[in-house]
Amino acid sequence: MKKEKKNIAAIIQFRRSVCRILITTLLTFVFISNLAAQNKTQMVRLAKLVIDSAQLENYKAALKEGIETAVRIEPGVLTLYAVAEKNNPTHITILEIYADADAYKAHIQTPHFKKYKDITKDMVKSLELVDTDPLIPGMKIK
Amino acid sequence: MKKEKKNIAAIIQFRRSVCRILITTLLTFVFISNLAAQNKTQMVRLAKLVIDSAQLENYKAALKEGIETAVRIEPGVLTLYAVAEKNNPTHITILEIYADADAYKAHIQTPHFKKYKDITKDMVKSLELVDTDPLIPGMKIK
Repeated sequence: MKKEKKNIAAIIQFRRSVCRILITTLLTFVFISNLAAQNKTQMVRLAKLVIDSAQLENYKAALKEGIETAVRIEPGVLTLYAVAEKNNPTHITILEIYADADAYKAHIQTPHFKKYKDITKDMVKSLELVDTDPLIPGMKIK
Repeated sequence: MKKEKKNIAAIIQFRRSVCRILITTLLTFVFISNLAAQNKTQMVRLAKLVIDSAQLENYKAALKEGIETAVRIEPGVLTLYAVAEKNNPTHITILEIYADADAYKAHIQTPHFKKYKDITKDMVKSLELVDTDPLIPGMKIK
């Protein structure tokens, strides 16, 4: 009778272990496929702009406000990293990373993006949007 | 006598509070100035490369290995975010962010950077290094 109880306890223990392993494997799989999906659907772009030199400071203020708002309140805007060339300060490049195409579509409908577009429409001399593939999706800035 | 003891206790308590406030203020000041220094000395650059189309896959493998090693083992390499243009896959742009000029100087002396340079020397058709100023230093990728 005692041995039987021991056997039952061992079986229960074994079943619990198997369950735990299965659940861990399943969660790992879900996590990895989410990660893969996230990286696969990311939209990564370079925006190359030339700004009217007389309006450069106003342009940069409007861009800064637009970017800070977007990054703060839109979870799907992963970064908008803007740089000005030291030797050509009117030449601005923005590395734009969106979680996916829907996040981008939502972004251009936001009041802050529309405000930025409106304020800067006569400041931008040229705008080139270059779609890209990231070499290492998921790369961060430390 | 009892009153005197109370007074001494109050004075000690007051001194402790003042000390605590001073230390907190000092630490806050050190933290903020470090943060400011960190952002002021950052080196942010765009590397624009055109790769020989016949060697593109080999080039990308070497670049990927070089970047992954640098970002993993060099604390001063804050990011090396590389993209290939969808319409011109041989056109590669890398957003390079180093903690400061010393971090960059150390980076180009590392074995992994030298290995990358050596492997890719006949794959790179052109390389333009563009020094830039970031619009928002400290911007991250979520």
